[in-house]
Amino acid sequence: MSHSNIYIKDDEIDIVIGALRTDLTAFLNDWRPVFSRFHLIIVKDPDLKEELKIPEGFNVDIYTKSDIDRLVGSSSILFYGYSCRYFGFLVSRNKYIVSVDDDCFPAKDKDGSLVDIVAQHAANLTTPATPFFFNTLYDPYRKGADFVRGYPFSLRSGVQCALSCGLWLNLADYDAPTQALKPEQRNSRYVDAVLTVPARALMPMSGINIAFDRELVGPALFPALRLAGEGKLRWETMEDIWSGMCAKVVCDHLGFGVKSGLPYVWRTERGNAIDSLRKEWEGVKLMEEVVPFFQALRLKRTTVKAEDCVIEVAKEVKEQLGKVDPVFGRAAEAMVDWVRLWRAVGSSSS
Amino acid sequence: MSHSNIYIKDDEIDIVIGALRTDLTAFLNDWRPVFSRFHLIIVKDPDLKEELKIPEGFNVDIYTKSDIDRLVGSSSILFYGYSCRYFGFLVSRNKYIVSVDDDCFPAKDKDGSLVDIVAQHAANLTTPATPFFFNTLYDPYRKGADFVRGYPFSLRSGVQCALSCGLWLNLADYDAPTQALKPEQRNSRYVDAVLTVPARALMPMSGINIAFDRELVGPALFPALRLAGEGKLRWETMEDIWSGMCAKVVCDHLGFGVKSGLPYVWRTERGNAIDSLRKEWEGVKLMEEVVPFFQALRLKRTTVKAEDCVIEVAKEVKEQLGKVDPVFGRAAEAMVDWVRLWRAVGSSSS
Repeated sequence: MSHSNIYIKDDEIDIVIGALRTDLTAFLNDWRPVFSRFHLIIVKDPDLKEELKIPEGFNVDIYTKSDIDRLVGSSSILFYGYSCRYFGFLVSRNKYIVSVDDDCFPAKDKDGSLVDIVAQHAANLTTPATPFFFNTLYDPYRKGADFVRGYPFSLRSGVQCALSCGLWLNLADYDAPTQALKPEQRNSRYVDAVLTVPARALMPMSGINIAFDRELVGPALFPALRLAGEGKLRWETMEDIWSGMCAKVVCDHLGFGVKSGLPYVWRTERGNAIDSLRKEWEGVKLMEEVVPFFQALRLKRTTVKAEDCVIEVAKEVKEQLGKVDPVFGRAAEAMVDWVRLWRAVGSSSS
Repeated sequence: MSHSNIYIKDDEIDIVIGALRTDLTAFLNDWRPVFSRFHLIIVKDPDLKEELKIPEGFNVDIYTKSDIDRLVGSSSILFYGYSCRYFGFLVSRNKYIVSVDDDCFPAKDKDGSLVDIVAQHAANLTTPATPFFFNTLYDPYRKGADFVRGYPFSLRSGVQCALSCGLWLNLADYDAPTQALKPEQRNSRYVDAVLTVPARALMPMSGINIAFDRELVGPALFPALRLAGEGKLRWETMEDIWSGMCAKVVCDHLGFGVKSGLPYVWRTERGNAIDSLRKEWEGVKLMEEVVPFFQALRLKRTTVKAEDCVIEVAKEVKEQLGKVDPVFGRAAEAMVDWVRLWRAVGSSSS
């Protein structure tokens, strides 16, 4: 399939890192070949006491607790732990954001070359997505691929891609029970594919390695669901899963695509899964309520902006899930607050 | 994910080959390491005049025009060309069918080993499918994989898989326009993944390399849509695409899964795409009617058997598409005839 690639300039991308550890030296040095051309936004977890250690040679803006307090003031949103990165999404002025956890390192592809996650995410976001019909050879816009026989020609121009979800080698993004049951399990399978997650199909978006078009779907990437027992380990969080469900529903409603697959990052170990088991079950239980809710959710035809979609989802969350568990009422409130902040800082598209 | 694999015995599988060429010597000798343990059903295209050449050492039943005429008699179904294989689906007495085109040869996997398509299709069909929520690490039942964080536990047992659609290396299953535009294009990307196509997402099923559970979904794999200009080249056919849409809708309705991905076959060239261009556009145009129809189709809750689903789909096809093009009216008639035959030969499940 020939297509007109949108060309992204380096200064249209912000790389946003939530710093949950003080010393980012190894992390940034490993990523230097990929990140050094871009503007970095690093948001320091307000719980971190010491100074951040950042190696030289990066174009970086660092945001700390005082920046968050000044801009956000009193709000139901808590920018602590993994949620601190979302402050970077808020203050970014760029069209595209790439965000990775600070315990991820560059992976190698099948040929042993360093994976350039920015280039791959950019390719995912700037080539069309195909949510309305599944292409069995995966991304039809990729070099050497195409639409297969039977794919309707009227759908071959695709739609804009708003969200790109990358994957993980070594330590995959499993929950605590799975990690605890299979402590030795490592993901070594490099699946050389990108695909569009079909419309109306839900997925567990992991915030570990993602990129998105801020103008299209930025308002739907927020830290709203915070577990009571949430800690500083990925498997103790659900903010990205919740936000990802909301973002998928918003993309489906607005006719944008969500891709999953390449690029991979190499994820290193942190924490003890068995210690987290007690906490995790809260999130596991909540998913049983969350999935049917989002599967049934349909937004009003007249709602045509991502931020208005988020407000509408928040209203439904409050009405339908608020009575199930207070965590959902708080999430709904945080979503409304998020849109208010988004507009206040001038990120709103109108 | 630990799971209880269903164990398939060799004699529960039929390998069905539609012979569109007389000399199957090279084809069968290449497949010998994979096929020799199984019962083969070879259906000779009634248009072929000469004797089939079949090498020794296979457990094979051959069906020819006289067998078809005797069993089918007068029917709206035409078992010519690629459609001849479906006669094999009809007369099979086994639970599982694996079917490949006779211009496909064994592929090699990433490690250079011969791909055992029977073993891989069997694995796809005997491990659960997960149509109701997308797992970003693909098939969670595969060795070394699992459900990712956020995947609802209540959906982790999955559902039965009824249909497994394999892929193609070298010459991919493109339509004639794509082949004509990119005559040099070859598929060399081995994507090491199997995934469940999500519920309600449609896909272009290719009949080149498939396997299915005859008991669950056999009645939905039929040759019903025959193009006026259909010839002996894959890109001139649409019977598999049409049947695949129907099978997907039936699987979605009955709560069975459809998988796509591994195994690959190595597909060799046959025919000149430019010669087929004129014919192909008929199928291309039809797809624009077919896709919205199947996307909107919902079967009655009370229809709980695959063969009754096919009858119901046929009724809707006749009512909704019959007026658009006579080809659809004929397809509807053939589907009803197919179910009649299915029951007559004793393939019906009750």
